[in-house]
Amino acid sequence: MAAVNQVYIAIIGAGGVGKCFLSQLQALAARRPSPKLSLCYISTSRKALYNVDYSPVSLDGVTESLAASTQAPPPLAQVIDYLASAPAKVVLVDNTSSQDVADAYPLALSRGLSIVTPNKKAFSGSYKLWQDIFTASATSGAKVYHESSVGAGLPVISTLKDLVDTGDKVTKIEGVFSGTMSFLFNSFAPTEGQGGKWSEEVKKAKALGYTEPDPRDDLNGLDVARKLTILARLAGLPVESPTSFPVQSLIPKELEACASGDEFLDKLPAFDQHMEDTKAAAEKAGKVIRFVGSIDVATQQVKVGLEQFDRSHAIASLKGSDNIISFYTERYGSNPLIIQGAGAGGDVTAMGVTGDLIKVLSQIA
Amino acid sequence: MAAVNQVYIAIIGAGGVGKCFLSQLQALAARRPSPKLSLCYISTSRKALYNVDYSPVSLDGVTESLAASTQAPPPLAQVIDYLASAPAKVVLVDNTSSQDVADAYPLALSRGLSIVTPNKKAFSGSYKLWQDIFTASATSGAKVYHESSVGAGLPVISTLKDLVDTGDKVTKIEGVFSGTMSFLFNSFAPTEGQGGKWSEEVKKAKALGYTEPDPRDDLNGLDVARKLTILARLAGLPVESPTSFPVQSLIPKELEACASGDEFLDKLPAFDQHMEDTKAAAEKAGKVIRFVGSIDVATQQVKVGLEQFDRSHAIASLKGSDNIISFYTERYGSNPLIIQGAGAGGDVTAMGVTGDLIKVLSQIA
Repeated sequence: MAAVNQVYIAIIGAGGVGKCFLSQLQALAARRPSPKLSLCYISTSRKALYNVDYSPVSLDGVTESLAASTQAPPPLAQVIDYLASAPAKVVLVDNTSSQDVADAYPLALSRGLSIVTPNKKAFSGSYKLWQDIFTASATSGAKVYHESSVGAGLPVISTLKDLVDTGDKVTKIEGVFSGTMSFLFNSFAPTEGQGGKWSEEVKKAKALGYTEPDPRDDLNGLDVARKLTILARLAGLPVESPTSFPVQSLIPKELEACASGDEFLDKLPAFDQHMEDTKAAAEKAGKVIRFVGSIDVATQQVKVGLEQFDRSHAIASLKGSDNIISFYTERYGSNPLIIQGAGAGGDVTAMGVTGDLIKVLSQIA
Repeated sequence: MAAVNQVYIAIIGAGGVGKCFLSQLQALAARRPSPKLSLCYISTSRKALYNVDYSPVSLDGVTESLAASTQAPPPLAQVIDYLASAPAKVVLVDNTSSQDVADAYPLALSRGLSIVTPNKKAFSGSYKLWQDIFTASATSGAKVYHESSVGAGLPVISTLKDLVDTGDKVTKIEGVFSGTMSFLFNSFAPTEGQGGKWSEEVKKAKALGYTEPDPRDDLNGLDVARKLTILARLAGLPVESPTSFPVQSLIPKELEACASGDEFLDKLPAFDQHMEDTKAAAEKAGKVIRFVGSIDVATQQVKVGLEQFDRSHAIASLKGSDNIISFYTERYGSNPLIIQGAGAGGDVTAMGVTGDLIKVLSQIA
């Protein structure tokens, strides 16, 4: 019989967010005597650590033990089998951004495994996957939480769910959903003073670690489109995929085929004039440009791209790489409910995952 | 034996927030088949509706049925006895601002009744009451949630709890915690243009329904002090009471003894110069004054009163009667996590209560 006060934790992924989560999990397990949290599985794409008899993997020095492991991760279906047979409830923590792992959520949930994850892929892929996930969860009673899939640890998903669940009508969601885009436009088109050249701001952002290795993975707008897809679905719109609505890419057509991010950055200066013109047009109207996403629930319009804002607008006066998300609802009227702060970074992303884990534990343990 | 999928709801209070909550509860019960929510008790200070055999009170037209009731509310200890003997789990919803009801929370929780409430009194009264409440909850396993005790339905309490529970270190909390004060200073000392006279702004706020019947109940700062007490305690500071730290009252000493709010308003214009001087001093420094609360966790300093802010500061550029709460933490670094929006009003306050109810149901049903 399962020990009532024990919960097994299984973790896939031990990269940037994964390492921060491990450190938060260790502190959480030390701080909370009940339920007892035991790590029963951890893997990267190449290595795994687990015991067939479910005896716990020590959290002390787990990163090192995992690096030294000679076990390869079994196929996902086999991992799910192993976890579903565990002698206590299991929470699967997916700290990857893998579509393969996301595709396995319906199976995992139907086998009674609860899931917490910052992985956007499961919730912003096909609408069928979304439906399969929440149907499996409703049927088995296993929980699925993904706060960090939008705005990292900021309470974005939970707030939207609360609005919807308590019967408010969300009319519009608008905001800056990418730390990279926030940093780029706060520097390129600041509310006070002059920004640098566009290509130079992109290079600077990359040097500071604010972009993906290939900056085009930020500039194509897909990351923002994925987040919008998630929020739109939570607000009740059956958005088919992150490519089923207008998304403005900031990659010049001519540079889409560049073989590498470095080649892209080398050639980008030749296209600075277009961004300069866009900025100047906004300045003429006393405004600044920002890369935003918006969801108009009534007209079912979702879009991602550049828009102009008054310098005094909250979206214009954002700092650093902060995100801002405004919820316009029937109850809140003309002044939206606003959430603002760091929307990227290992520690704050892991915090959203840990917070979700605590919520799941309060329901299953 | 208790039906596993049934939860009884008991409600004390059917005023402004209470009526909005009833309407949200009715919609929630209609929307969610499980758990089945049955109203087993509702009372105002003069009337009550309940059946000794726990057969449900209909939510349809309950306000009218309650008004027509000839039952008087039994003493609280008796109500708790009745609820603790119910044949299913019970959530007690306290929609009053009564200290007496708050004082009964430890007893209710120890008898297994979960509590959701916007009532600040329980959490901002003596530190002993705070301790008794959370000890009773930890011992019995009954839940207690009070999101709407600070910032109405804004996710303030839940966010602070998540920060603390996931192991972040909150260093400072700062904000505008009163819709009344927000409205008054956004009008009296706007970031652009000139505000009116102080006494006239107070009169206008009262006429618009933004103040208590006697505006001194807002201007004494106690409401903000209560909210700060709650947040400081959640951040780990053992604040003894809302009068154990500096709170600036905006009531001139000479008017404290006025017999009524009307007499106070009549005499207030004679004291306009002091507020005018305070505003002018800030303007000289290029700033505006706002009525804020702040908690410095490291130095354990809590204070409430007027402070100067740059016109571009988020606290200065607040709109209408909005609240803003900034959490400075180790993980979030120099840019705080910010929550902003309406912090008062029946519907949004009730929304916080309904949201809490949903969270409790997910844990007990």
